[in-house]
Amino acid sequence: MLVWELDTPALVVDLDIMEQNLRRAAEYAAAHDLRLRPHTKTHKSPELAQRQLALGAAGLTVAKVGEAEVMLGAGPADLLLAYPVIGAAKLRRLVKVARSARVTVALDSLTTATELSDAARDAAVSLGVLAEVDVGVGRVGVTPGRELRDLVRGLASLPGLEFEGIAFYPGHIRRLDEAGMKALDVLDRLVHSIVADLRRDGFEAPIVSGGSTPALYHSHRVTAMNEIRPGTYIFNDRNTAACGACDASDCAAFVLATVVSTARPGQIIIDGGSKTFSSDRLAGAGDEAGYGLVLEDPRAVFVKMNEEHGFVDVRACDTHFRIGDRVRVIPNHVCTAVNLHETMYGIRGEEVVAEWRVEARGKLQ
Amino acid sequence: MLVWELDTPALVVDLDIMEQNLRRAAEYAAAHDLRLRPHTKTHKSPELAQRQLALGAAGLTVAKVGEAEVMLGAGPADLLLAYPVIGAAKLRRLVKVARSARVTVALDSLTTATELSDAARDAAVSLGVLAEVDVGVGRVGVTPGRELRDLVRGLASLPGLEFEGIAFYPGHIRRLDEAGMKALDVLDRLVHSIVADLRRDGFEAPIVSGGSTPALYHSHRVTAMNEIRPGTYIFNDRNTAACGACDASDCAAFVLATVVSTARPGQIIIDGGSKTFSSDRLAGAGDEAGYGLVLEDPRAVFVKMNEEHGFVDVRACDTHFRIGDRVRVIPNHVCTAVNLHETMYGIRGEEVVAEWRVEARGKLQ
Repeated sequence: MLVWELDTPALVVDLDIMEQNLRRAAEYAAAHDLRLRPHTKTHKSPELAQRQLALGAAGLTVAKVGEAEVMLGAGPADLLLAYPVIGAAKLRRLVKVARSARVTVALDSLTTATELSDAARDAAVSLGVLAEVDVGVGRVGVTPGRELRDLVRGLASLPGLEFEGIAFYPGHIRRLDEAGMKALDVLDRLVHSIVADLRRDGFEAPIVSGGSTPALYHSHRVTAMNEIRPGTYIFNDRNTAACGACDASDCAAFVLATVVSTARPGQIIIDGGSKTFSSDRLAGAGDEAGYGLVLEDPRAVFVKMNEEHGFVDVRACDTHFRIGDRVRVIPNHVCTAVNLHETMYGIRGEEVVAEWRVEARGKLQ
Repeated sequence: MLVWELDTPALVVDLDIMEQNLRRAAEYAAAHDLRLRPHTKTHKSPELAQRQLALGAAGLTVAKVGEAEVMLGAGPADLLLAYPVIGAAKLRRLVKVARSARVTVALDSLTTATELSDAARDAAVSLGVLAEVDVGVGRVGVTPGRELRDLVRGLASLPGLEFEGIAFYPGHIRRLDEAGMKALDVLDRLVHSIVADLRRDGFEAPIVSGGSTPALYHSHRVTAMNEIRPGTYIFNDRNTAACGACDASDCAAFVLATVVSTARPGQIIIDGGSKTFSSDRLAGAGDEAGYGLVLEDPRAVFVKMNEEHGFVDVRACDTHFRIGDRVRVIPNHVCTAVNLHETMYGIRGEEVVAEWRVEARGKLQ
């Protein structure tokens, strides 16, 4: 079947581009002696996680217990749950996962750690823990210094838990311009001093885990970091391209859509809106930046969305779009787009050669 | 089980409020002799569609063929597909649906109508059609006047199709302030003249279908309209309340979430972000309006979301939130939120008494 014969809207992955993205990151990580523990939130598919493992990934990262359960299907030796696990229901499921793979949890409070320790002890399993540190995003994570020391001391004393090091998310570093490079220098010094402080207090941090897609290929500049957890790099998206971390031609995933109305002059309506792409705007930009990149004509502007309607301004286009025409659109944020689809299709050239269920889709718990 | 014992994030529906919303709309429609053909995109559940039919709904509205297939589960006599159906794959499925229920399609081009006519003839079924008119939203729909006349004339001549009238979506009328009431007057005159023009050309429009949730209880002011298709009214949401069409206490659906981090002073992180609520901002407002209404403390501001993290500013709150605390959040846009959940829970008071699968979730095609 050719890609143009797929019913729409459909999420399509160009395998050549995806494999190039996967290889490049794997080779970079190997060259710089970085453990690569890719975040599976982007593809949400055990089949694609398997490819990451086959290329040398040290393990997989997930955000929710439900994702961990699904990702066991990829047969990882090691799973990092980069999210605080709260409550008895989730802990029961987590310790069950820990019978099939080594499980490590990144967390930022002794409340969370104590619950986790109790669950591990009751189930007679051992769980790894990473102390989550805030390095500037202001999301989760304790402040470096006294707060971190208290957390690490507590973690080291709790039965059933093994202190494995620290985790952080440098999501504030997006664009690697002069300011971004300076922020990377600051991060380098900060992480260095965090590790040195812990050592002075008698704690070794075998794992120093950070990394995101935008700064992926600058990870070696954060010299004390030895593990990276990028997610988006497998596909890339309009956000990744907009921050200069890849070209549009490195974006492996697109939504195939159909023109369903041309009733308004200068506008086409495509059969995908916020239920197909997500409402995510271009990071750091306003509505005027639009909701995706239309590959058929770069002068088409994806200006607005309703749930099932994509509004594309075609006034500046040479292309004359007609009802039934197919268009390929690179989403702003591919992770939230993948979460909206039941299926992804893999293509080589124009040929559809793979079909994957998005198994970890909507695993909110 | 009590609602507080549900694992989180979970989508919860207060049945007393929902039933009141359903009854109120049914009684209003009956009192004003309006056919009520509710849009099922909001609840995406055949069980809830059944309740709408039991209260006198004349049929159900859907946007996609996949939703029509699911909604057959509610046993409707009549289904309106308020979306142009394009392409052989969808048409094959549509005519199959038409063997179990009367199917009507709203469309805005003869290209679409001709494909539909061919499919109906091949399958030996008859399909209803409504001519979609643009009344000011600028989305789909032909312009009233010559364009509409040409479309209706074409529809009436195509075999397998039965011209049933016109459809429009007055989504531009949201706030029923002075300007909104004026817009409603303009709409009243416009729809009146559309129907009169068609009659002059020899076409009766038995169905004049419009209506949305924000202007629901003013529908009788559009005197020529005899059918309404509200969707959101079953639950209402922060958008509905913000435009003055309901109170916060009329919002039946909320997301139950758990506080997972309090590491940053003045901020809590809850275990739901854009993957749980959708990234939809408050309609017509900026980011500063936030992403939902936190019922536990109205001074809490849901300022930001990542995929799994909800950032809530609690600096102005009296409540002291701790890790593990549950919070109830009314989403900005309940339709896109429901689409992200596999399950909805119904409660009476604090007791969980129902569990529905969101069967039409993610039916993009």
